Amino acid sequence: MIDQVGRSARTASHELRQSSGATRRQALLEMADAVVASESALLEANAVDMDQAIVEGISGALIDRLRLTEARISGMATGLRTVAALPDPVGRETGGWVLYNGVRLHRVRVPLGVIAVIYEARPNVTADAAGLCIASGNAVILRGSSYALRSNIAISSALREALTRVGLPVDGIQLLEDTSREGAKALMQATEWVDLLVPRGGPGLIEAVRSEATVPTVIDGAGNCHVYVDSAANLDKALSIVVNAKVQRPGVCNAVETLLVHEAVADQFVVDAAKALIAEGVELRGDARSRELVPDMVPATESDWATEFLDLVIAVRVVPDIETAIEHIRSFGTGHTEAIVTEDRRAADRFVASLDTAVVAVNVSTRFTDGEEFGFGSEIGNSTQKLHVRGPMGLESLTSERYVLYGDGQVR
Amino acid sequence: MIDQVGRSARTASHELRQSSGATRRQALLEMADAVVASESALLEANAVDMDQAIVEGISGALIDRLRLTEARISGMATGLRTVAALPDPVGRETGGWVLYNGVRLHRVRVPLGVIAVIYEARPNVTADAAGLCIASGNAVILRGSSYALRSNIAISSALREALTRVGLPVDGIQLLEDTSREGAKALMQATEWVDLLVPRGGPGLIEAVRSEATVPTVIDGAGNCHVYVDSAANLDKALSIVVNAKVQRPGVCNAVETLLVHEAVADQFVVDAAKALIAEGVELRGDARSRELVPDMVPATESDWATEFLDLVIAVRVVPDIETAIEHIRSFGTGHTEAIVTEDRRAADRFVASLDTAVVAVNVSTRFTDGEEFGFGSEIGNSTQKLHVRGPMGLESLTSERYVLYGDGQVR
Repeated sequence: MIDQVGRSARTASHELRQSSGATRRQALLEMADAVVASESALLEANAVDMDQAIVEGISGALIDRLRLTEARISGMATGLRTVAALPDPVGRETGGWVLYNGVRLHRVRVPLGVIAVIYEARPNVTADAAGLCIASGNAVILRGSSYALRSNIAISSALREALTRVGLPVDGIQLLEDTSREGAKALMQATEWVDLLVPRGGPGLIEAVRSEATVPTVIDGAGNCHVYVDSAANLDKALSIVVNAKVQRPGVCNAVETLLVHEAVADQFVVDAAKALIAEGVELRGDARSRELVPDMVPATESDWATEFLDLVIAVRVVPDIETAIEHIRSFGTGHTEAIVTEDRRAADRFVASLDTAVVAVNVSTRFTDGEEFGFGSEIGNSTQKLHVRGPMGLESLTSERYVLYGDGQVR
Repeated sequence: MIDQVGRSARTASHELRQSSGATRRQALLEMADAVVASESALLEANAVDMDQAIVEGISGALIDRLRLTEARISGMATGLRTVAALPDPVGRETGGWVLYNGVRLHRVRVPLGVIAVIYEARPNVTADAAGLCIASGNAVILRGSSYALRSNIAISSALREALTRVGLPVDGIQLLEDTSREGAKALMQATEWVDLLVPRGGPGLIEAVRSEATVPTVIDGAGNCHVYVDSAANLDKALSIVVNAKVQRPGVCNAVETLLVHEAVADQFVVDAAKALIAEGVELRGDARSRELVPDMVPATESDWATEFLDLVIAVRVVPDIETAIEHIRSFGTGHTEAIVTEDRRAADRFVASLDTAVVAVNVSTRFTDGEEFGFGSEIGNSTQKLHVRGPMGLESLTSERYVLYGDGQVR
């Protein structure tokens, strides 16, 4: 089964690799139109998925993600049109020089080939992921959740038909209808067919990919993000950054989980921050010094420092100096996003140079680690690994660089 | 054991990450001097390794690789000085723009952190690999062959002392003295400590890494390279390219293994190429049409098309058109290097666009896929995977790009 899908994807990828940027752009516009034109079919299929999910006792937040509405369908179309408008990464020359013997060398971006995406019960990911893969000249194999199967079939059918309208191979987009664990495992191990697997989901999926995948992967891992408020911080900026980073959308990976405060400003800042955060409904878990300042705090345990709460909870620690803050982050950070608030350029430089993380933010909320915010138009994930790509993954992350040599008969 | 080495490497990597390019350059020059100054100690240690290897019945080619001479020691020093002179990839800004809200975004190259290198009984790799890792701001854990253990200890001791002379941490370079398979496996699975593992060795090592490694790896895989001689080829160029690609150094991954010839030029070219190759001692294995032209050829089997001979053997097939050549390469190529010889620009474009390989060469020998030839100064391997880096791996491949954001209190 996976071999048949994989072989079709590989064949489609050969055609997509050679397609023009204009054709792929047109494909995305057709895909957007097709999604809109299929609105009633999509809503109908989604209603069946929703009914079944409710019967199976699926909870509120998941049900909300699964739901399609007219606005969400139109949002999918808008997303596809946005990606269509992005610069084409394929064929872009990223370097070029002439070798000692006159051979001309070009380093050029090319599609990876076949991308597999495993995701949860969010039907809009079907359109998002397909759009990014087609735009970057890749074929895609989609494996969504069983809860969204009918919705996904309806969406992918519309997208596939759109491909044929511009002369691109229909199997550039394929949806796996086998939503079993065995099916997912087969996809994770289809080394002959899959050039990159992007898992989009919670810790369970990530753990399964880590332990079972043999195909190349980019892991969208945990974000145990910190904000360090330095002794030289502007405390007004610090307060708005901390509150924004925790409260604006606590359930996402770029939300802050631990606040580190230099002791020189702790008396004022821990008290102010606690007041503001508590007013927003945040639970604070503090170290001994923080709790002296704000006795309402729950005592923080060792495991709180290591936890990505993904909720209205924040751990707070007062540190004697920037070195201790850096050490704390080295011990507990996950390489996602770390922020410092300071007006001292040397402290900022030290923080930036010392920490090995995909994104380091100076006087900015951690919430900016995001493909749209970065100007990538859209993102297929956020890499917390170091190889291939770090941070928000845009179109470029679905390509690689290869070399083309032009000569006139040169030999060694 | 691996945890102790790994922790020391991690700590050293924090210092190396923050070291200046000038310090690292100076370190490489000191390393070069140290290798030269230790010549007698190196030769002595190597003599013990050689004696033992001979007692254990190691064969001629391996013994030759294991041997250190004054010239080879001086070669190691030259290699280190060459790398010292290369542009520093660390801190290089590869992109930068201002977000809609005034946040300044910088994309910057940073060291990966800790690199592990597993390699065979070639003591010079100890200096080469250490030089590339230190130059790119990484700590390195070296795991060489038991046959070269005393030589490697002597070399790495000299290199480590050189680090301390410029104030860099001595554990920036560590050699694992445990050369057991279990020790190698522990290194391959030290996910907490190793950011990149580069295996340098034969198919046995690569297979062990593929099946056992859980750390990120870049695989230096097989090179089943092809030369396709098009109907519009200049046959003089074609002849010198084919002979060079097969004969100049047949045991390396960028040597050609299969020759594909368009039938329009086969009558002349297969005969000429066979004559030239046979004169160089090459065994030819041909398809039916080739053997009609050159009856001396051995019949090629299906497995010959898939074999990286790494020897003076070449498979030959006459193809009716460029499409068949492309299909053949898609079926049997390993994504390393594929060459076309043609004066027809459209045929060249088609070949380049159709084939997904790290290097595609037009009218150039496949032998140019090499870090030194590309101008990288040196290489730590040649990637046949698609993620992170393809083709010759220079200093840049030991770094990754991360983002630094500078703002003035911006929130979402």
